[in-house]
Amino acid sequence: MDAINVVTRLLNEANIEINGDNPWDIQVRDERFYSRILADGSLGLGEAYMEGWYDCKNLDQFIFNLLRGNLEEKYNAEVLVTTMAEKFKHLFNPQTINNCKKDISFHYDIGNNLFKHMLDPRMVYSCAYWKDAQDLNEAQEAKLDLICRKLDLKPGMTLLDIGCGWGSFMKYAAEKYGVICTGLTLSKEQIKLGKENCKDLPIEFIYSDYREFESDPFDRVVSIGMFEHVGPLNYGVYMQKAHKMLKEDGIFLLHTIGGLSDSEHGDKWIRKYIFPHGIIPSIQQVGTAIAGTFYMEDWEDFGPDYDKTLMAWNENFQNSWKDIEKDYEGQKYFKKMWEYYLLACAGAFRARDLGVWQIALTKKRLVKPICRV
Amino acid sequence: MDAINVVTRLLNEANIEINGDNPWDIQVRDERFYSRILADGSLGLGEAYMEGWYDCKNLDQFIFNLLRGNLEEKYNAEVLVTTMAEKFKHLFNPQTINNCKKDISFHYDIGNNLFKHMLDPRMVYSCAYWKDAQDLNEAQEAKLDLICRKLDLKPGMTLLDIGCGWGSFMKYAAEKYGVICTGLTLSKEQIKLGKENCKDLPIEFIYSDYREFESDPFDRVVSIGMFEHVGPLNYGVYMQKAHKMLKEDGIFLLHTIGGLSDSEHGDKWIRKYIFPHGIIPSIQQVGTAIAGTFYMEDWEDFGPDYDKTLMAWNENFQNSWKDIEKDYEGQKYFKKMWEYYLLACAGAFRARDLGVWQIALTKKRLVKPICRV
Repeated sequence: MDAINVVTRLLNEANIEINGDNPWDIQVRDERFYSRILADGSLGLGEAYMEGWYDCKNLDQFIFNLLRGNLEEKYNAEVLVTTMAEKFKHLFNPQTINNCKKDISFHYDIGNNLFKHMLDPRMVYSCAYWKDAQDLNEAQEAKLDLICRKLDLKPGMTLLDIGCGWGSFMKYAAEKYGVICTGLTLSKEQIKLGKENCKDLPIEFIYSDYREFESDPFDRVVSIGMFEHVGPLNYGVYMQKAHKMLKEDGIFLLHTIGGLSDSEHGDKWIRKYIFPHGIIPSIQQVGTAIAGTFYMEDWEDFGPDYDKTLMAWNENFQNSWKDIEKDYEGQKYFKKMWEYYLLACAGAFRARDLGVWQIALTKKRLVKPICRV
Repeated sequence: MDAINVVTRLLNEANIEINGDNPWDIQVRDERFYSRILADGSLGLGEAYMEGWYDCKNLDQFIFNLLRGNLEEKYNAEVLVTTMAEKFKHLFNPQTINNCKKDISFHYDIGNNLFKHMLDPRMVYSCAYWKDAQDLNEAQEAKLDLICRKLDLKPGMTLLDIGCGWGSFMKYAAEKYGVICTGLTLSKEQIKLGKENCKDLPIEFIYSDYREFESDPFDRVVSIGMFEHVGPLNYGVYMQKAHKMLKEDGIFLLHTIGGLSDSEHGDKWIRKYIFPHGIIPSIQQVGTAIAGTFYMEDWEDFGPDYDKTLMAWNENFQNSWKDIEKDYEGQKYFKKMWEYYLLACAGAFRARDLGVWQIALTKKRLVKPICRV
């Protein structure tokens, strides 16, 4: 059977028709598409999109169907090209301090202008909370406030934000709950804009890897959408550091994307083009990392909300592309790459191949239950 | 240093004085106490209490202090007597179907009269939910209703209850939510009384191990306080069975005691006198067991509520001992054994060495978020 037949049959199993009329069907523009998918799996699927070898009206729906078809179980193209070298990769730590400094810059220093247009006005770059929200802005404020309530913030408390971005959470917590904040990030662009946004508030930005940072303990510790960069070999160290940075009666709120099972490496396309060395943790891995350090108080999942968030980001991105375009003039594939990132991830959250977790952790000293809503 | 000095010093580290005046101090009545504790660890501590070698005004507070003193880390008496045989025990499955049938009977067939006096009127034998409750009765109804809300029960739905006890949850769900229930238990005493309590309701009791049971799938599956009998070697099989018994768009609510880390075997005293082959699961173990089968939607912990529940049970037990006594006439140590069980567990939950988990699981098909309150 040749590549066309294999791919066509596979996609049919996921209810996708080549050159069909459904919004999730794909239009193949280059016949090399078929053999590339078979050879390169998810990496090839993303690259072929970027290069225009196929197109799709609703790419998020295409990815959703693909994942819900459980094709990986039936025929794992990626397995075919997995080399022994790949298998042994987990012996080395890909998330060294030096790598992290490069990796974070690779994505988060890509241009504040892009993020300003894509995100809500507060520039919150993590999953929003849509339960009672009408739009992205409300959903992001709802998420920030939910975290504040879970942390049981009181005026005058000190808070450490590991991976603070542009300081959007710290700004909200300082303004609404009177908290004194210290934020760590490895993005110089984020620090520049963050300092501007947060001036006149008791907020400090520090360029530091979590492993390098030393301080007296804080009343509260938070980490929102940063654990995805930590890597399984460092989960223990990360938890020990958070533990050390937290007072005895403190609360640590960890907000992260979560996966259904251990993954040795993340999705190949995402790692190459979007988040180098990004890895999605599993329940087992989190459990192992906190055993002996933290008591797990509460574990909420609102993964389907990331679907909505990513779709809102893509809408903003598309609508303001004319104002972003000039920053990426030399990069032929930039727009396709970015929309593939947003829409493929939306599809993955919709298919529930990925979740969004908020995990409340304490040092066993908590008397009052953690707020759950 | 002799045994008296070692034990005295150890207890002092946990703020406990031998023959002291605090309500958590112990009064030693038999000098053999000291060497027994050193030789037999937690098993000896329970047995010495049963046999009257020491006494304590508030035994729960004694155990709480003991656990919070982290004595195990400093000087693990149990390690001293761990034999190689003990170490290799995990190679064999202690929770075979035959063992489970014996083990469940050992505890749950101990006498319906005892449980009637100790528990609330609905006879709910698991942790209650005290948030807005005034007494045990209210707290148990609040827990039952919380589970119904998390399961999103609708009239006419079918429900499987794995480890249904006297049918207290099924009765509540059938009466208040119009659900049709099937319950599994290995206690003949529970079936006898359960059938009486639930007559005229669409509730069926089946004497069956979860591994033996076969049926078409149900709209909902629930398991409340039974997972503690499953054992790590069977977690995978248990989850696969629950998965098979659940419809595609169903919800499975698992309610269980949880531990801070993997344990190869449970507490020795508890295993010998209360729950043979009982094992408390860890987050890692649950994560491993559900990887590839279930999507984790929500994970609530309300461990401190078991402290209150156990203290309420002990109060009922003490107040009605005169009506229970006659059933255990030949058993010299019964009262001390039973109160040690209730109070030592209360102390362990207060120290947060144990938690209570409600884990909502689906087959990834859920659209509506799980109710969290």
